[in-house]
Amino acid sequence: MTAAAAAPIADFHLANGMQVVVIPDHRAPVVTHMVWYRNGSADDPLGKSGIAHFLEHLMFKGTHAHGPGVFSDRVAELGGQENAFTANDYTAYFQRVAREHLGEMMRFEADRMTNLTLSDEVVTPERDVVLEERRMRTDADPAAQLQEAVHSALFAHHPYGLPVIGWEHEIATLDRHDALAYYRRFYTPENAVLIVAGDVGTEEVRALAEATYGAIPARGEPPERARPKEPPIRAHRLVTLADAKVEQPSVSRIYITPSYNTAKPGEAEALEVLAHLLGGGATSLLYKRLVMEQKIAVAAGAYYLGGALDDTRFFIYALPAPDCSLEKLDAAIGALIDEAKHKDFPAGDLERAKTRLVADAIYAQDNQTSMARWYGASLATGSSIADIRAWPERIEAVTPDDVRKAAALLDSRRSVTGYLTPEETPAAA
Amino acid sequence: MTAAAAAPIADFHLANGMQVVVIPDHRAPVVTHMVWYRNGSADDPLGKSGIAHFLEHLMFKGTHAHGPGVFSDRVAELGGQENAFTANDYTAYFQRVAREHLGEMMRFEADRMTNLTLSDEVVTPERDVVLEERRMRTDADPAAQLQEAVHSALFAHHPYGLPVIGWEHEIATLDRHDALAYYRRFYTPENAVLIVAGDVGTEEVRALAEATYGAIPARGEPPERARPKEPPIRAHRLVTLADAKVEQPSVSRIYITPSYNTAKPGEAEALEVLAHLLGGGATSLLYKRLVMEQKIAVAAGAYYLGGALDDTRFFIYALPAPDCSLEKLDAAIGALIDEAKHKDFPAGDLERAKTRLVADAIYAQDNQTSMARWYGASLATGSSIADIRAWPERIEAVTPDDVRKAAALLDSRRSVTGYLTPEETPAAA
Repeated sequence: MTAAAAAPIADFHLANGMQVVVIPDHRAPVVTHMVWYRNGSADDPLGKSGIAHFLEHLMFKGTHAHGPGVFSDRVAELGGQENAFTANDYTAYFQRVAREHLGEMMRFEADRMTNLTLSDEVVTPERDVVLEERRMRTDADPAAQLQEAVHSALFAHHPYGLPVIGWEHEIATLDRHDALAYYRRFYTPENAVLIVAGDVGTEEVRALAEATYGAIPARGEPPERARPKEPPIRAHRLVTLADAKVEQPSVSRIYITPSYNTAKPGEAEALEVLAHLLGGGATSLLYKRLVMEQKIAVAAGAYYLGGALDDTRFFIYALPAPDCSLEKLDAAIGALIDEAKHKDFPAGDLERAKTRLVADAIYAQDNQTSMARWYGASLATGSSIADIRAWPERIEAVTPDDVRKAAALLDSRRSVTGYLTPEETPAAA
Repeated sequence: MTAAAAAPIADFHLANGMQVVVIPDHRAPVVTHMVWYRNGSADDPLGKSGIAHFLEHLMFKGTHAHGPGVFSDRVAELGGQENAFTANDYTAYFQRVAREHLGEMMRFEADRMTNLTLSDEVVTPERDVVLEERRMRTDADPAAQLQEAVHSALFAHHPYGLPVIGWEHEIATLDRHDALAYYRRFYTPENAVLIVAGDVGTEEVRALAEATYGAIPARGEPPERARPKEPPIRAHRLVTLADAKVEQPSVSRIYITPSYNTAKPGEAEALEVLAHLLGGGATSLLYKRLVMEQKIAVAAGAYYLGGALDDTRFFIYALPAPDCSLEKLDAAIGALIDEAKHKDFPAGDLERAKTRLVADAIYAQDNQTSMARWYGASLATGSSIADIRAWPERIEAVTPDDVRKAAALLDSRRSVTGYLTPEETPAAA
């Protein structure tokens, strides 16, 4: 039995279709209140990239009942914390406050689910804020620029190839009408998940949720999330960004692989274990070979973004030692991946990887917000509460053969290699 | 004065908004009858790639009045020729027949502009025909696969990155409803251009057009062509396709540049001249340097796809000599492009290039179908009759400085390099 299975988590729906999850945690008299919408940057309409993220900013701009900033000011006044984030597949808002303020948070959040007001006076300056955010985060950072170019090359067609924040020239055109059209389409009770974690009981949450969110009329079906599928691209793709500002060169490979939502049973769990065996710390294959033995890298790792609605990404990266070329390091990574496709990983390594993954999940449960985020992100990307509960068992069931098959899913024809370098290569002239 | 300016071409609109162009050519008693629709693969709705091309096939499947194939059979019976084609920005249908049959062609073509009937019995097998066409042309040909991958990497966002024929998995989902929805949206008189070239007078064409196309009710505005713009991608992108079937390796570079429709005045003409100077035959810079002097290539060339609604493509390619690596050849191409940015092309070379371009246009006018295609393609991509007529003068006006500025438009950050090779490179593992 795992800690996840032990938690008496409640899951129900309001009459208007809004999903509610209650995660009890009575160690301190606080609650984490989150609303997750099942729409993210990958649902941005064509030519309107950045609208999911822009609306997240605008959600703080007030309603008929509460002016701009009033909700945030109230959270601060209560000594609480708040935040919001936009990802490929979801957008979420959260507050962490003393338990007695949960009802007030729900009233505010339910109010802005349906009563947002936007004027040009508020929208236009906020758009400048987002444009500046983009300039700071992406345009001034060669590594971020490379990531944008790599994603854009990797996904020929699927919107995971677009930056979450949007392309600058499209952000610059977003206006009040775009924001409100998007808001009306996606900010509906059927499309939302309420997660309450903390010092509160299920029946109390149910009563508060019915009195607040429950008053919002159902809209009918949840909004459609129609995204184009990726075609098979056979060619190998190398994206190089050379910039004098680069201090540490790097090689990265990003592969398109199944996600928890698109994989055959067991595949995603095996990819998770593979990422750990390949690149999860100092005992991993990449680290041992490239850093310790061959001494051609100063760091190396791998990770798997399994929580995604559509086919997702598996990342491998390495930072070359001062005397090693990116090409040589890249070839060594390729050889290691080939090796993994046939390797009999020692039983001890496999057990350690699985134990570590399950332990990480248990440690995450020790943090109320991490726990709420885990549930919210999973539910927004196609998993059920039962899937989340059974995850540790599914990880434990991964066999050495499953890991080899997972390595075989790393198909170079569904990958892009990225080089970040301070020097212009001759071919880049 | 040029031959283009000399032709007494008539241009008018029917009351329903359909544009008509009449190009007299009385050398033989034949006419070329073309209808161009201002929609192509770049207007395919998201997730429905291939629909423009698929509908082109389905346009031969009959109307209420004429069953499947009746129009084509009639053209054959009259000893005529017919064809249809789909490109990024337009779809066109044409027949070439004896002059006395022009009215009948117009009746058939006007009929299928508005009365197309489609049953599943007809649509489903035709979809298999298109899928087979795709397999033959693309999936079996490494060079075509590389082109798809290069275009997909070059255009992060704009639909010029999608193959005209569509992605296989999307073609496979296209049905009668998709085809009819697309047909109703785009096949309207406001969106069409009728080109008649041949042994016929303007007033005769006007009378026939009014009696046939003119009977189709106006729909109001032409359909919107809203396409996302490209973001600036800073990274250099290399796409490599290795396949044992490759007999002749190659290096290609494709740059995004302005088109005639998006360029500042004179830029597109200068790109046209630059393409000729760089890669238009055995006297071009690429050929002289890479093939004749350095002997590292067996062929090399360049061309500019200026006729496009949006920012377009400038192509450079070279086939390596047997002992030359793709990397070495690629670096030599890069050096030549850099050279062109500062080069004082000899006045004689510039004059020869311009004379040749204008002469090619005059020779094209000697062929009725080429002439009709030139006008149709230009009018469907944003040019006017006046633009077409003035083109030779605008080419003549290109200066050496214009050519250098055009070379500076070849920005490696808006380019993709493609390698076609019989061998797997180590990095592709």
